[in-house]
Amino acid sequence: MTNSAQANEMANAIRSLAMDAVEKANSGHPGLPMGVADIATVLFTKVMKFDPKHPWWADRDRFILSAGHGSMLLYASLYLLGYEDMTIDQLKQFRQLGSKTAGHPEYHFAPGIETTTGPLGQGIANSVGFAVAEAKLAAEFGSDLVDHYTWVIAGDGCLMEGVSQEAISLAGHLKLNKLVVIWDNNNITIDGRVSNADSTDQIARFKACGWNTIEIDGLDQAQVEKALLDAKKSKDKPTLIAAKTIIGFGAPTKADSHGVHGSPLGAAELAGAKQQLGIDYPAFEIPSHTLNAWRAAGTRSENARGDWEGRLASAKPELRAEFERRIAGKLPANWNETIEAFKAKLVADKPKVATRKSSQLALEVINKVLPETIGGSADLTGSNLTNTPETLPFTATDRAGRYMRYGIREHEMAAAMNGIALHKGLIPYGGTFLVFTDYARPAIRLSAIMSQKVIYVMTHDSIGLGEDGPTHQPVEHLSTLRAIPNLLVFRPADAVETLECWQLAIEAEQPSILALSRQNLPALRTETVTGNPSAKGAYVIAGDQNADAVIFATGSEVTIAVQSLELLKAQGISAKVVSVPSQELFYAQSQEYRDSVIGKPKAKVAIEAGIEMSWLKLLGDKGRFIGMHSFGASAPAEALYEHFGITSKAIVEAVMAQL
Amino acid sequence: MTNSAQANEMANAIRSLAMDAVEKANSGHPGLPMGVADIATVLFTKVMKFDPKHPWWADRDRFILSAGHGSMLLYASLYLLGYEDMTIDQLKQFRQLGSKTAGHPEYHFAPGIETTTGPLGQGIANSVGFAVAEAKLAAEFGSDLVDHYTWVIAGDGCLMEGVSQEAISLAGHLKLNKLVVIWDNNNITIDGRVSNADSTDQIARFKACGWNTIEIDGLDQAQVEKALLDAKKSKDKPTLIAAKTIIGFGAPTKADSHGVHGSPLGAAELAGAKQQLGIDYPAFEIPSHTLNAWRAAGTRSENARGDWEGRLASAKPELRAEFERRIAGKLPANWNETIEAFKAKLVADKPKVATRKSSQLALEVINKVLPETIGGSADLTGSNLTNTPETLPFTATDRAGRYMRYGIREHEMAAAMNGIALHKGLIPYGGTFLVFTDYARPAIRLSAIMSQKVIYVMTHDSIGLGEDGPTHQPVEHLSTLRAIPNLLVFRPADAVETLECWQLAIEAEQPSILALSRQNLPALRTETVTGNPSAKGAYVIAGDQNADAVIFATGSEVTIAVQSLELLKAQGISAKVVSVPSQELFYAQSQEYRDSVIGKPKAKVAIEAGIEMSWLKLLGDKGRFIGMHSFGASAPAEALYEHFGITSKAIVEAVMAQL
Repeated sequence: MTNSAQANEMANAIRSLAMDAVEKANSGHPGLPMGVADIATVLFTKVMKFDPKHPWWADRDRFILSAGHGSMLLYASLYLLGYEDMTIDQLKQFRQLGSKTAGHPEYHFAPGIETTTGPLGQGIANSVGFAVAEAKLAAEFGSDLVDHYTWVIAGDGCLMEGVSQEAISLAGHLKLNKLVVIWDNNNITIDGRVSNADSTDQIARFKACGWNTIEIDGLDQAQVEKALLDAKKSKDKPTLIAAKTIIGFGAPTKADSHGVHGSPLGAAELAGAKQQLGIDYPAFEIPSHTLNAWRAAGTRSENARGDWEGRLASAKPELRAEFERRIAGKLPANWNETIEAFKAKLVADKPKVATRKSSQLALEVINKVLPETIGGSADLTGSNLTNTPETLPFTATDRAGRYMRYGIREHEMAAAMNGIALHKGLIPYGGTFLVFTDYARPAIRLSAIMSQKVIYVMTHDSIGLGEDGPTHQPVEHLSTLRAIPNLLVFRPADAVETLECWQLAIEAEQPSILALSRQNLPALRTETVTGNPSAKGAYVIAGDQNADAVIFATGSEVTIAVQSLELLKAQGISAKVVSVPSQELFYAQSQEYRDSVIGKPKAKVAIEAGIEMSWLKLLGDKGRFIGMHSFGASAPAEALYEHFGITSKAIVEAVMAQL
Repeated sequence: MTNSAQANEMANAIRSLAMDAVEKANSGHPGLPMGVADIATVLFTKVMKFDPKHPWWADRDRFILSAGHGSMLLYASLYLLGYEDMTIDQLKQFRQLGSKTAGHPEYHFAPGIETTTGPLGQGIANSVGFAVAEAKLAAEFGSDLVDHYTWVIAGDGCLMEGVSQEAISLAGHLKLNKLVVIWDNNNITIDGRVSNADSTDQIARFKACGWNTIEIDGLDQAQVEKALLDAKKSKDKPTLIAAKTIIGFGAPTKADSHGVHGSPLGAAELAGAKQQLGIDYPAFEIPSHTLNAWRAAGTRSENARGDWEGRLASAKPELRAEFERRIAGKLPANWNETIEAFKAKLVADKPKVATRKSSQLALEVINKVLPETIGGSADLTGSNLTNTPETLPFTATDRAGRYMRYGIREHEMAAAMNGIALHKGLIPYGGTFLVFTDYARPAIRLSAIMSQKVIYVMTHDSIGLGEDGPTHQPVEHLSTLRAIPNLLVFRPADAVETLECWQLAIEAEQPSILALSRQNLPALRTETVTGNPSAKGAYVIAGDQNADAVIFATGSEVTIAVQSLELLKAQGISAKVVSVPSQELFYAQSQEYRDSVIGKPKAKVAIEAGIEMSWLKLLGDKGRFIGMHSFGASAPAEALYEHFGITSKAIVEAVMAQL
């Protein structure tokens, strides 16, 4: 151990707080903070740019604890640095209901927590988005205003997760040189030695993906400092710092073993660790000279921030206003009128196109009026139609580009979009097939947990995609996405609804899924209306308000439902079609509105080319569902709709069975 | 082009059929078959061991088209080799309803299709399981009976997917030398050149993961043959053959472009391609000398198979019987009595343990009586309790091991288990936390599409896991897993139910999820019953059969429901608790049985520490749900149950509100 006494004391302050908090909670992960304390000390007190008094300073460096289980490393550091929200009482409330110090770092809980981590690999996957956002905004607003680094601490678990490969191959390809990943190379996982389950040469792997690599002893603060500073010098590659550490460093019997990963040390081991480390103060009581040293380090960037404020103040007014608007996430003044004008055009034009095409038409307008959108696709651009004339690619050589060629990396696309949104200044949207939300689900769930404005453009949204067959046909997905709390799932029926859903997704302060058809659909919304009917989630799109039968439908099936009205009329049955572009928004309306839409029908039918699960609430005991009850099949779309009985005729039968 | 005339003709037969079938279907992917035809020709006619007349021969080499969109490569080859089911009429019915020639290869549709592929990365991820099964069975039954290779063709898309990293790092770690992946290195993806989205040095990446690598021109059959034979010689590493190819080889204007990936060539381009390739015969009419050469090659392994049959016939009777039982997937004669005996012991012992512990107790019995189980965990063995004294690890040096240390690779775990199950001879089970089914969902869906006996041991199944917080607490997952067609989702309430669910999972011819508690639960099934009540999915576990109120519950909430009975009784309300270990099995029962369980209650309540979506069908209009309506939180389990109102008191209120 070559660290100076003060350096040791500062790192031990983290170790001490981490051990104490986990012990008090009788739950948590002391191993990582103890092993990584030296790295965190150097990173936070000597290298990173941030200001605890202005924690949301737009040009701060970002820190991401990808190994989120080591949350006490972050909480202890934030406390030591002087982040106001992170009090010693919060540390004492670690893992208790209502505290800011949750088991894993939760975005929104306290400043300094840049993203929610815990599910392994997500942080490193987010970080690529942060670094993309930085590079893109720097290209737009200049390095006077945007010039910061993204720092990640990742464990062996993060590197074993598949999404890490998607992340590092994308970051290397894009030459995101201001991204630095510090690998806590402690050779321990929950089940024992890493070598039990993995033999990957990580250095060679990162090099193969175009990364700069540095190997150090992560317990030697001088080596750490040199590595971090060297990483900042990398001009055209992201950097991996492979830092050899010892999990649970200082614990007399449990260090360097999986026993210290995820359980309190216990009184004896804790006492032994403190003795071995030279920690002679009571639990949660950091000596003032150590605390003062940390707090002083916390003020290091005050001048840099002041200079930055000066540069912002003296920037051209339009640039400054635009920068502030973008970081605040406000929409431009002409947003509403632009959408309304285009809606009027669509009402007049009545395009008969697939909703994926309608989405592209909407994007052509949106991308013009919102320079903050950054599109992309997981290698399905021509299918998702996520591109517009504005979306030149964001590349290693053109940081001004607005389109992410994510490659065949659905999971990383979603995770990177989380990072882009969390960074602020950009609105990410990205496409793949709806069925492949399965590949991205852990990151989609995090969009929802963190309430981030991430827009998923998910095309080929049913058996309507046809011949590609069951592996490509979503069946359960609309229901299983609606099942995720705080996620908006839109399935628009025509061009006008698609525009309205896009408007809602852009205005929402939460993530959205747009489920869009591959097949062409007629225009249904052919009359001018005021406002955005889709905003209420569901509304009567056709038929008599006081009809005997109500037919709920979404997307491509709204057309089928509307077609059934004539057939029903021929049987002397009055019916109406309720288009339900978003169940979530409909349930958020007043009971009065919902009653007014549903009416008091004698028959209820819902039709959607997916499973019934998410429809049962609307249908109740007597309503009937028309949709899928199994996986799909490979055949032309029309044949499949007939084969699976998703037809106007089926609607008529279902209505008549109830009357 | 250095191939002989006959070699070219044989490869062109594939190209021709692929072009014709895609053109006739007016849908499909001609690019891959045209680029990879030479590789397939050499692999199928010179290297692989199989017998079209005995397509399920246990010791055949396995072929996996990981790039499943190139399905016509496989169908054309199977037809040419003489697989009976794959007629020329089937090729003409490519992508039509009811044909064996679905858009992507579908397991069960025709012999020679070893696994369902299409979602990228899944095939290469399956292949690790195939190779594990081969090595394990060879160790058990000897190389006289088990000695075959697993061959994979993977595209750039497969290698970009994160799951490929999990697959190759696991395969390299386990030194699966009989696994050979041929990378169709054509530098084209749907959006254009690979170099638009990826710059990975794949050779270096595979080397970093412990693979043998070979680089060849994939259009030169001599190079292909040498590479395939060299790969077979690898003693301690899986092999990557990086085969440079040209997508759509032969197409005059579209070759080497993404235009030939996923669309028919069109009449003019098709004619031009045939002219350029020297294909002068009509569509679907392979000249007899070429067809005969293929058919002759298809018989190459007849003698090898005969010899193998001889070795099997002359093996020790017990070994032979056991081998045949295992490959047929039959359970041993003492299976039922073993389970019954242990159930009697549990009824007597009344253990108060978490259901994850009950699962381990069940496994201790199951692993003794079923040598075919191969367990594992994604680095959570001590949490999932998936190990027993029998489960020594399967490693690079001990192929007899029965436990897969999957590492932090949930997706690969699921995909490998698919491969193990598809191989036959073993029953795979593997564990992680229930919330991380999200990471494995694409592979879980394939378990269900393929109806494979794969058992997912998913512990920490609710907010009951406590302090780890919302990222680790499943909320929507029970509903979203029930949403997958053909998947059994079990959530047992105590040790006896857990054993019963394990029995059902082992006996099912489809995949199962066991959702298990972290927290201890009392014994509820304390009386001897005949048969397996869990087999009917739901049954009255407590209370009066003709009660006024019925309370549906699963898992840890059954205890809460049973506790409410006393409270309800104090209010003068008769009630019963219906334990629902499997909704799927309950819905599969007769209406009569379901009516008998539910009765005609005046009040219905369902309680589950998840969302309500999958309960609405049982609850109908009037029933009430007690569970989660948001993400969870970080706190001790008891505090969370109270905080979210999942309590006996809430049940009483919900019942009384209905009476």
